[in-house]
Amino acid sequence: MNASINGAGNLMDFLDEPFPDVGTYEDFHTIDWLREKSRDTDRHRKITCKSKESIWEFIKSLLDAWSGWLVMLLIGLLSGTLAGVIDLAVDWMTDLKEGVCLSALWYSHEQCCWTSNETTFADRDKCPQWQKWAELMTGYTEGAGVYLLNYFLYVLWALFFSFLAVSLVRVFAPYACGSGIPEIKTILSGFIIRGYLGKWTLLIKTVTLVLAVSSGLSLGKEGPLVHVACCCGNLFCSLFSKYSKNEGKRREVLSAAAAAGVSVAFGAPIGGVLFSLEEVSYYFPLKTLWRSFFAALVAAFTLRSINPFGNNRLVLFYVEYHTPWYMTTRLGKYPVLEVIVVTGITAVLAFPNPYTRRSTSELISELFNDCGALESSQLCDYINNPNMTRPVDDIPDRPAGPGVYSALWQLALALVFKIVITIFTFGMKIPSGLFIPSMAVGAIAGRIVGIAVEQMAYHHHDWIIFKNWCRPGADCVTPGLYAMVGAAACLGGVTRMTVSLVVIMFELTGGLEYIVPLMAAAVTSKWVADAFGKEGIYEAHIQLNGYPYLDQDEFTHRTLATDVMRPRRNEPPLALLTQDSTTVEDVETLIKDTDYNGFPVVVSRESERLIGFVQRRDLILAIKSARQKQDGVVSNSVVHFTEDAPQIPASNPQPLKLRRILNLSPFTVTDHTPMETVVDIFRKLGLRQCLVTRSGRLLGIITKKDVLRHMAHMMNQDPESIMFN
Amino acid sequence: MNASINGAGNLMDFLDEPFPDVGTYEDFHTIDWLREKSRDTDRHRKITCKSKESIWEFIKSLLDAWSGWLVMLLIGLLSGTLAGVIDLAVDWMTDLKEGVCLSALWYSHEQCCWTSNETTFADRDKCPQWQKWAELMTGYTEGAGVYLLNYFLYVLWALFFSFLAVSLVRVFAPYACGSGIPEIKTILSGFIIRGYLGKWTLLIKTVTLVLAVSSGLSLGKEGPLVHVACCCGNLFCSLFSKYSKNEGKRREVLSAAAAAGVSVAFGAPIGGVLFSLEEVSYYFPLKTLWRSFFAALVAAFTLRSINPFGNNRLVLFYVEYHTPWYMTTRLGKYPVLEVIVVTGITAVLAFPNPYTRRSTSELISELFNDCGALESSQLCDYINNPNMTRPVDDIPDRPAGPGVYSALWQLALALVFKIVITIFTFGMKIPSGLFIPSMAVGAIAGRIVGIAVEQMAYHHHDWIIFKNWCRPGADCVTPGLYAMVGAAACLGGVTRMTVSLVVIMFELTGGLEYIVPLMAAAVTSKWVADAFGKEGIYEAHIQLNGYPYLDQDEFTHRTLATDVMRPRRNEPPLALLTQDSTTVEDVETLIKDTDYNGFPVVVSRESERLIGFVQRRDLILAIKSARQKQDGVVSNSVVHFTEDAPQIPASNPQPLKLRRILNLSPFTVTDHTPMETVVDIFRKLGLRQCLVTRSGRLLGIITKKDVLRHMAHMMNQDPESIMFN
Repeated sequence: MNASINGAGNLMDFLDEPFPDVGTYEDFHTIDWLREKSRDTDRHRKITCKSKESIWEFIKSLLDAWSGWLVMLLIGLLSGTLAGVIDLAVDWMTDLKEGVCLSALWYSHEQCCWTSNETTFADRDKCPQWQKWAELMTGYTEGAGVYLLNYFLYVLWALFFSFLAVSLVRVFAPYACGSGIPEIKTILSGFIIRGYLGKWTLLIKTVTLVLAVSSGLSLGKEGPLVHVACCCGNLFCSLFSKYSKNEGKRREVLSAAAAAGVSVAFGAPIGGVLFSLEEVSYYFPLKTLWRSFFAALVAAFTLRSINPFGNNRLVLFYVEYHTPWYMTTRLGKYPVLEVIVVTGITAVLAFPNPYTRRSTSELISELFNDCGALESSQLCDYINNPNMTRPVDDIPDRPAGPGVYSALWQLALALVFKIVITIFTFGMKIPSGLFIPSMAVGAIAGRIVGIAVEQMAYHHHDWIIFKNWCRPGADCVTPGLYAMVGAAACLGGVTRMTVSLVVIMFELTGGLEYIVPLMAAAVTSKWVADAFGKEGIYEAHIQLNGYPYLDQDEFTHRTLATDVMRPRRNEPPLALLTQDSTTVEDVETLIKDTDYNGFPVVVSRESERLIGFVQRRDLILAIKSARQKQDGVVSNSVVHFTEDAPQIPASNPQPLKLRRILNLSPFTVTDHTPMETVVDIFRKLGLRQCLVTRSGRLLGIITKKDVLRHMAHMMNQDPESIMFN
Repeated sequence: MNASINGAGNLMDFLDEPFPDVGTYEDFHTIDWLREKSRDTDRHRKITCKSKESIWEFIKSLLDAWSGWLVMLLIGLLSGTLAGVIDLAVDWMTDLKEGVCLSALWYSHEQCCWTSNETTFADRDKCPQWQKWAELMTGYTEGAGVYLLNYFLYVLWALFFSFLAVSLVRVFAPYACGSGIPEIKTILSGFIIRGYLGKWTLLIKTVTLVLAVSSGLSLGKEGPLVHVACCCGNLFCSLFSKYSKNEGKRREVLSAAAAAGVSVAFGAPIGGVLFSLEEVSYYFPLKTLWRSFFAALVAAFTLRSINPFGNNRLVLFYVEYHTPWYMTTRLGKYPVLEVIVVTGITAVLAFPNPYTRRSTSELISELFNDCGALESSQLCDYINNPNMTRPVDDIPDRPAGPGVYSALWQLALALVFKIVITIFTFGMKIPSGLFIPSMAVGAIAGRIVGIAVEQMAYHHHDWIIFKNWCRPGADCVTPGLYAMVGAAACLGGVTRMTVSLVVIMFELTGGLEYIVPLMAAAVTSKWVADAFGKEGIYEAHIQLNGYPYLDQDEFTHRTLATDVMRPRRNEPPLALLTQDSTTVEDVETLIKDTDYNGFPVVVSRESERLIGFVQRRDLILAIKSARQKQDGVVSNSVVHFTEDAPQIPASNPQPLKLRRILNLSPFTVTDHTPMETVVDIFRKLGLRQCLVTRSGRLLGIITKKDVLRHMAHMMNQDPESIMFN
């Protein structure tokens, strides 16, 4: 809402030249959405005017209009490509922990046997070209020694990968750790974190993500892929001044990039758009909806074209882990050691149990699947009841065989292990995501419950509950469906997603028929989780980090603007400027003595009538520039914010006219305005600050930080937990 | 933002008692969102306070907290039930035009033959119990006379149904006509149209919807079902004072009801939520998202439980027609005649062509389907090529037989007929929807293109375009998919839906694999349609009707608040009140002489310092009440808006204190604020009016109507087209 910029055309040129940084923001500061929007409209108007001048300008204006779609196309292509490369690399490196392909070192286990002619369908994963490390080194394939050697090498590789990952993150790009979603959420709400979406972060995050996932830690690649896609978005923004010079427009692109990220993480383009809308974005106009949709489409399409194993939807689209809680351990002070220890424990404990050794996505895939006739899984070891006349593939409602019982025990152990290790894995200084581990926990629990209900239904089919539900001899319990619903419920509880969760789940599984149980699970898990606390994992993380994020929760307290505004009762009066009686020296003293981001300008100290607001940064730049370039501007010069400088006697020093940097339309509320309304205004209009008046007199100022502190105070939290401005 | 209400607890009681209507709105006026929100927060605070007093109050507060979900449950149940009943009634009455079931009069054709034992699978729709009218009357089943008699009776029934529908609408509930979506969109944006969602409208719309659809007009039941669901929502709002007394909260319920409406119209619960979000709603917080989701779930579930033919997804969930353009014909002045004429033409032209005689949803279903081995449709009359070794059900890439060619001609005629008749059907004074006719047009065009491409691929498979795409002997063109994509594209072009369109399409068809072509079609149709004009059918309708709807389009002109505010340069000064020098008589004169909705209150006419804003309606009620109940208040009494009434000599009449109805936190902007920002503020905060100041002095006022007029003016439209306030 910088009216000075809107005020006059020649002014723009003046501002562009001598103060190159006017209108930009400092690191860890909040942007002013209205001002950014205003600047973009101004830019747009200029281009529209110019486009009538010549054909070249007309073409340029067309290019400008289509640059949004072009950026989306580029983001879709790059993030799809990166996701494809990450998938392939993770496949290869996960298998490298176990063995190597002799025919071609860069083949994963599956690719190796796929290309082998000696493979039959039943033994898809056994072929001579693929050798486990112990086999390669000793020549034996069986025996306790071989098992232990494989075990040892598996742990060693895992430790090596995780050490490499944590070192790279530590040395080159500290911002590459974690899932990145809380920070992206904060950035999208208007906060500046320089370098968080930089090229360096992109590169290191991509490489370390592969390492971290391959190491077998209980973490996933889905959240970090959102971060990677946002880095791509930021990268392409820099190609177009429309986006690189406007923090508001840039955030529109980033919202769409987040959608593309989820789209490639799960192969769920619509789920991605909804995730961006429901979970991540702050300002999401319909235009961004359409563009996100396009970016997500291109990204999913690119990934599908790249990935050579595009057969199985589940395996194609999600491959690894994620993580859900934050705890500070003593180890937290030694990030590298922490990663090594957790990796070691994970690898040592995970190897013996078949359900934790394999990649989590394979586990989920097996838990979701129903037992068909050809299924060789332990989970499908049912006793075929000779009394029944049903075909073989009609599995449910048969007594479980010993395999199912041992699988149940292993699943129970895997459940405990996953829950505990995931808690400790989260928050380590490596790229780590949240979705897959929580889905795995839910799927294991769901499958266990499913098998239990199934066996109950078989053994007690005369109970009333089963009588109305299962006709004798027909299927009535599908343990795979329980696993799917469990996964959705657990993920929903952790993230509090609803609509996007259901869409992602059915885009993942193709199970459109299960929409009703999935929806019921999503709603129930949200209710139950909300009873414990209203915040999802990302909001909790944002709060832990003290980011200035205004969430959508309703503010219901009875305070007024006057209770929140500064200065408080015992504080020194508001730091302000007058329109025509402050000298350059006064201004410089004010800037030196205070660290406010801006100052209100009034007619005079007596009347206190507000005329505008000036940014600290702009003021510093303007004075500096004037002192250098304008003759006659000395410490004694009077600063004028009025339209016409008054006549000044020749003896006085030349005045400094600064109306051009004055925002003539600062946002004001009266001191009687309920804070609830103020919070609403800050949230919806994306303000940085708001001035408080009574009967036209300036009383004080409320900044976003004041609002957040007040909200923390009202919720009996420490107001000092809000760290940034 | 009524600070007076938030100001003091005892005040609320005072306001509740003597002026029962304070804080309500008149018909065809716009609500103040901030004020409604503020009132709800206040109510919530009161309940929270009370809940600590006793267990009963605590239970009441719990009930209050859960009433939102309860309302959603009720809406889901009722709208699901109504949709089921409408489906059944339409089935029966559509068949009634052709014949009657002798075994039970209330059976539709399908039900009649379904219950008959003599039916074989191949002759599902031929059974002795079902008799066509001519057969029943003459005893003959064949011959030109029988055909003509059936034709005549078909037209007669159609005319009867449509006459009944238009008469009922005209006499009992004029608001029941049309699809209702543009009006619902306007209502959700904060406009009041009393009776539009009333019980009477609900009843008549339900009945006439069945009649209109059964009459065979080119219209559908999907849009009207959204209106029906919103009426249900409004009905249940009246059970809870939380919703009935707060226009803001009521709109949250209505948004969710719209989602439930689409959910039952298409059997697409997630599509419904997205439709409400993308197309209909104005204020859609995350809380409403979750609730919509729940309502849509319950509604879909209820419908599925009721509908006895829940086998085929497409037939189950959509049954009839809709309509897409508005034209004023001369017939428009005679609504009953218009309906009769259009119905007559529709029935006469539709009967001979098999593709227009059947219900549109059946047509779409056939066009979407691929030709399987058992398909007896004319569209599947291919010549089996003896040179090919492929199985019989592998249909594409075979030369078309004579049936396909005659089907092509009939489809082409049906396409022209559908396009023309739909244009004229739209806007008639009966319930009519938009989705199905546009989908039918798109599906016909798509199928025609699909068959053409298929035949080209067969006859010219050496062309480069087909060479890379079709391996010889394999399927490469699926005409059914072309129809599906065509339907999505046409519907997308008419409504400009994107994400919700794709979700609805794949919830309808279960075709998750076709998500990429559907998304591409949605994006392309949006681009192409936007090139002709930015407005979808609903926005166009809103504009035609002159409703005060602020759409999401960006305002890019360079005007400032000072250019839009009233009074303009030549107009009389702003009508305002002073805080302590206006008499009751002055106020009454002001109210009589002007028709403004409210008046700013200033310190004095000289200083023009703004202290608040008072609503006309509240002022009238307060003065009336004071004159009746308060002794000593006469025409000469001075009206005080100050906190403390000054000491008044005994000789003067008693003052009237009105601070309690004064809004102490009116919204202000400076005269230099760009209109772009003002529009944004109006849109995002849902304001009714905004005051304009400069250096603390009141200059003028901008109302929502002023903003809309200015926007119309800037787009070179007639500002007088904005009719309501």
